[in-house]
Amino acid sequence: MNSFGRLFRVHILGESHGHCAGIVIDGCPAGLPLDAADFVTDIERRKGGLQKGTTPRKEDDLPEFKSGLFNGHTTGAPVTILFANNNTRSGDYEKQRAVPRPGHADFTAHAKYGGYEDFRGGGHFSGRLTVALVAAGVIAKKLLAGITVESTILEVGGETDIEKGLQKAIDAKDSIGGIVECTVKGLPVGLGEHFFDSVESLISHAVFAIPAIRGIEFGTGFAAARMFGTDHNDAITDAAGTTATNHSGGVVGGITNGNPLVFRIAVKPTSSTPKEQHTWNRETGNIESFSVKGRHDLCIALRVPVVLEAVTAMVLADLMLLEQKLSRVNPVQPS
Amino acid sequence: MNSFGRLFRVHILGESHGHCAGIVIDGCPAGLPLDAADFVTDIERRKGGLQKGTTPRKEDDLPEFKSGLFNGHTTGAPVTILFANNNTRSGDYEKQRAVPRPGHADFTAHAKYGGYEDFRGGGHFSGRLTVALVAAGVIAKKLLAGITVESTILEVGGETDIEKGLQKAIDAKDSIGGIVECTVKGLPVGLGEHFFDSVESLISHAVFAIPAIRGIEFGTGFAAARMFGTDHNDAITDAAGTTATNHSGGVVGGITNGNPLVFRIAVKPTSSTPKEQHTWNRETGNIESFSVKGRHDLCIALRVPVVLEAVTAMVLADLMLLEQKLSRVNPVQPS
Amino acid sequence: MNSFGRLFRVHILGESHGHCAGIVIDGCPAGLPLDAADFVTDIERRKGGLQKGTTPRKEDDLPEFKSGLFNGHTTGAPVTILFANNNTRSGDYEKQRAVPRPGHADFTAHAKYGGYEDFRGGGHFSGRLTVALVAAGVIAKKLLAGITVESTILEVGGETDIEKGLQKAIDAKDSIGGIVECTVKGLPVGLGEHFFDSVESLISHAVFAIPAIRGIEFGTGFAAARMFGTDHNDAITDAAGTTATNHSGGVVGGITNGNPLVFRIAVKPTSSTPKEQHTWNRETGNIESFSVKGRHDLCIALRVPVVLEAVTAMVLADLMLLEQKLSRVNPVQPS
Amino acid sequence: MNSFGRLFRVHILGESHGHCAGIVIDGCPAGLPLDAADFVTDIERRKGGLQKGTTPRKEDDLPEFKSGLFNGHTTGAPVTILFANNNTRSGDYEKQRAVPRPGHADFTAHAKYGGYEDFRGGGHFSGRLTVALVAAGVIAKKLLAGITVESTILEVGGETDIEKGLQKAIDAKDSIGGIVECTVKGLPVGLGEHFFDSVESLISHAVFAIPAIRGIEFGTGFAAARMFGTDHNDAITDAAGTTATNHSGGVVGGITNGNPLVFRIAVKPTSSTPKEQHTWNRETGNIESFSVKGRHDLCIALRVPVVLEAVTAMVLADLMLLEQKLSRVNPVQPS
Repeated sequence: MNSFGRLFRVHILGESHGHCAGIVIDGCPAGLPLDAADFVTDIERRKGGLQKGTTPRKEDDLPEFKSGLFNGHTTGAPVTILFANNNTRSGDYEKQRAVPRPGHADFTAHAKYGGYEDFRGGGHFSGRLTVALVAAGVIAKKLLAGITVESTILEVGGETDIEKGLQKAIDAKDSIGGIVECTVKGLPVGLGEHFFDSVESLISHAVFAIPAIRGIEFGTGFAAARMFGTDHNDAITDAAGTTATNHSGGVVGGITNGNPLVFRIAVKPTSSTPKEQHTWNRETGNIESFSVKGRHDLCIALRVPVVLEAVTAMVLADLMLLEQKLSRVNPVQPS
Repeated sequence: MNSFGRLFRVHILGESHGHCAGIVIDGCPAGLPLDAADFVTDIERRKGGLQKGTTPRKEDDLPEFKSGLFNGHTTGAPVTILFANNNTRSGDYEKQRAVPRPGHADFTAHAKYGGYEDFRGGGHFSGRLTVALVAAGVIAKKLLAGITVESTILEVGGETDIEKGLQKAIDAKDSIGGIVECTVKGLPVGLGEHFFDSVESLISHAVFAIPAIRGIEFGTGFAAARMFGTDHNDAITDAAGTTATNHSGGVVGGITNGNPLVFRIAVKPTSSTPKEQHTWNRETGNIESFSVKGRHDLCIALRVPVVLEAVTAMVLADLMLLEQKLSRVNPVQPS
Repeated sequence: MNSFGRLFRVHILGESHGHCAGIVIDGCPAGLPLDAADFVTDIERRKGGLQKGTTPRKEDDLPEFKSGLFNGHTTGAPVTILFANNNTRSGDYEKQRAVPRPGHADFTAHAKYGGYEDFRGGGHFSGRLTVALVAAGVIAKKLLAGITVESTILEVGGETDIEKGLQKAIDAKDSIGGIVECTVKGLPVGLGEHFFDSVESLISHAVFAIPAIRGIEFGTGFAAARMFGTDHNDAITDAAGTTATNHSGGVVGGITNGNPLVFRIAVKPTSSTPKEQHTWNRETGNIESFSVKGRHDLCIALRVPVVLEAVTAMVLADLMLLEQKLSRVNPVQPS
Repeated sequence: MNSFGRLFRVHILGESHGHCAGIVIDGCPAGLPLDAADFVTDIERRKGGLQKGTTPRKEDDLPEFKSGLFNGHTTGAPVTILFANNNTRSGDYEKQRAVPRPGHADFTAHAKYGGYEDFRGGGHFSGRLTVALVAAGVIAKKLLAGITVESTILEVGGETDIEKGLQKAIDAKDSIGGIVECTVKGLPVGLGEHFFDSVESLISHAVFAIPAIRGIEFGTGFAAARMFGTDHNDAITDAAGTTATNHSGGVVGGITNGNPLVFRIAVKPTSSTPKEQHTWNRETGNIESFSVKGRHDLCIALRVPVVLEAVTAMVLADLMLLEQKLSRVNPVQPS
């Protein structure tokens, strides 16, 4: 449910307006050097407030290490990292409780949890929890020494010029989505398991845990459905498995083939938008108009790349352990 | 690895040219009436040989029940169903062993399993195993009384006129892909779990176990990335959660909202194609031309709909059990 | 690894001398009323310092709720509870690092984690972590409304007069073990799953996570091996499954039969003992004598009953959810 | 439920009087040589009919390999092995359906599965399924090259002279239990995981899946509860972790310490006994006397040793894979 992974196993916890968002990582190899400085870059990449289109909510997001670290290294015991919520304004939300916001989990969470859910700011469903995923990703990336996991925004609001896409949203006083691509280089041949634990199965499973994701495609993806077989097939050119093209995106039969792993995801427009919308009011039973006054991103896709890298790295660290290509002790040694 | 599901849990086994393909289902509720006749329609839908574009390999595909059935009902113990492989021609494949076919798992399987893999016809990686998924789907669908799971082909080779798309492949003597859509009606609000076990996570995990799938999108999917928030958000219109539109495809916050669940998948062109291709020869080390002589589908997408329904139904049966909306005993009672 | 349970799933974390011991509970039903007062009794029962034979280390052990609670009820999201370590004296341990204490995990942990383990006070292997189990048990017991889970000490140091057993240890300046029995009343018929998830399998799995446990037996247990079948068999006397005797301890075929669940565990003598011992010194390579100066229990068995209840209640809450006899929302309603 | 193991994962299926008993093993390393001859010794050891005290039901028990083998080696895909049930006499059981036999799962299975369970000969709860465990054990033992797993009967009916114990049962026309010990030599230091996946937790979990087991103890076990700490602690004597005594039974802190792993289990007297018993009749509601006419063992403990070895080897193979001390490909190479 709130856990993922077989050997590198993460458990996520927390709420948008509760004490914290956090992660417990079980199975992290012992002996990985780790300190707060490791987290700065990726945590900053995820943060809002610094660029046009992202929320003005600001959190320091200093990782609080609660377990699993000793003398600057992981110990092999569960690594627990919390991120305190300091900059919350719950008052913003209380009055909106009767109004399940379209596109948010308000309605479904209320139905599922009988009204006991923490509805403030989306509670456990909030994008706030992605800070915990990013932390897990930082650790996973360190474990994947020699392998690079990089995501970039391909388009925003249908525009490959990202600034132009954002301006469309600002002009329309509306929110907007985007497309993000992830590329992994340096993977060995042979990651991924038979059938249900194919690389695509595991990555898509993890990716759809990120709020607002609506689609994923590997290699040429949906375009492959319109190609001929001889055009789509990647000719193998040598014993290392190098292929002349990479339409497969680095995965064949669910298993990495040594070429770059490439996939793209679709991010929907932020559900909260300053523009007026209509919805059903739980208390009055009427359809009412409303507009969202909270602090929200115009384009959540801008913050997705580092989160996408994080969940991808988590999956790959797990598969590397499973394939015995990552040691359970002292995983990153000086060569 | 070869297992999927939490409470309705399937284990897949078998090879293309070994004894059989099969499935073991653990957690199937006791008291479901079941006999061979239940399987005929879906097994026939999956079969090749009946329509243009599908393989001439013909199997009877009569289910052999090996456990878990007694007096015409499931017992609560694991249900085991095997499908014998009778119509195999392994000689077709032996000589091709040195030639890892582009787009197939030949190269990756050989690397991962050290040459011990059953390479005949793709072995455990073969689409042959989808017959076992279909069988699991038949049972899952029976459990989902009152819920309909239906898949249709939207396009083949880029053409919505399917015949026209197939003719393109025949004319080009090449293989071709397609896009398939699945719609589920009658679902309760509240299926799907927090975070990692969102409906999208679980369905995509299962879907990417089907060979040849390259992408999945829910609701408006990739098109959502080009919409404004107010256009994409589905306004809630009543206490049942009915929405004016269904861009979300019936899932919000990872949880079903009571509207139809809708998603699409991309199927790549069949890797085996009669047209000449080039690949590396393991024995000679040279790049050689070859063409596939075996019996293969021109368009595997034609056989995917019933398999897609099957894995979707498996996921939903599991979630219904988890949400306690499906009883573990006597699940389908006369009303 | 550090997780247990299928639907009521606990993740344990922390160290003896790190920041805290803690628990994350995933799958706890929404709507359970919960506050700090619920924990007082069981946390106090576990504490040392109050009775002869237990350690003078004193911790306040106030539960810090970090997630999953809102307005005094569980929300359905992961419940995180931490217990701070305030009363630690790590200096006690540093100098002993070269000396793996007999009966402790010092040697095995060092070998497994390559010296990166937190060795202070046993680190993650410490009995300190049982405070987190007790917290999970408090919640599990609240979920098991109408079912009582009670443990008692049967003997200490071979004496059924517990005071007498303790005095033996004090006189010998040595540590001593004991036997604890757990009885559960009010269980429905039908808990426990086929084969690998029998009630005995699940309970023993959880019980052996408690440090210092060396054996477990259900019903008449080892004595059953010396009985005739007609003496051991419990005759069924009515439609409710009431049996004339309860040699089976309430479990037949791995499934509860509605009679009291009864089992016993053996607790070894505390490994740390004030009496002089010998062990190998990692640095010198010599066998040396030493005696343990830290604060330790003479008889850890005295603190085990509440921990045993906790893990038992965890298993049973999980099985009740699985059997759909415990609701996932609003589990404890006024009747 | 019917599955066990993390990386070497078994799924059990079948019934006493259905088509077969069987096992699917997922995660078995590729490249293990395997043929029917490997199974003969252990399958014969399990069989009844050859010694005083065991059932006259005779099955050939030839393993039918259904998947995962190719050219005499495992392929890395799921290994499926079935054992046909040929020698069944279901007529023996039909008439007894109204009479839930004391000590059997008849009553609990009926309650749990609503009467849909296959009640013939205990159905899925039958000791017949242990033949499938033995088969999994054969494979696990082959993987554990250099490690020996051996079980012996310590006593029967309270007698260490086994013949004498059996004679007691024959004289009393009653059934009788026993105690079995398992010893594993050659294990590396470091197997077993933190907390919930301790060696004791995993072994006891697997062991209680064997029908008729009522207790388990490691090392000195229950006797440890009556020892002083300095007597119980095993002094470490060298860098390899060799201990002067082995009261811990080779596991400290849940992790193997390199000394022999030793544990004992209690087997209850066979529930079916020729002697007259009383039970409640489901149809009449009366208490009635009956005696069991089927073919049953006087002392099931006689057949347990090889089954105990099997589940122990399964657990250890899993832990060896997890600890990366067993390769996933070509695990048994000529040295």
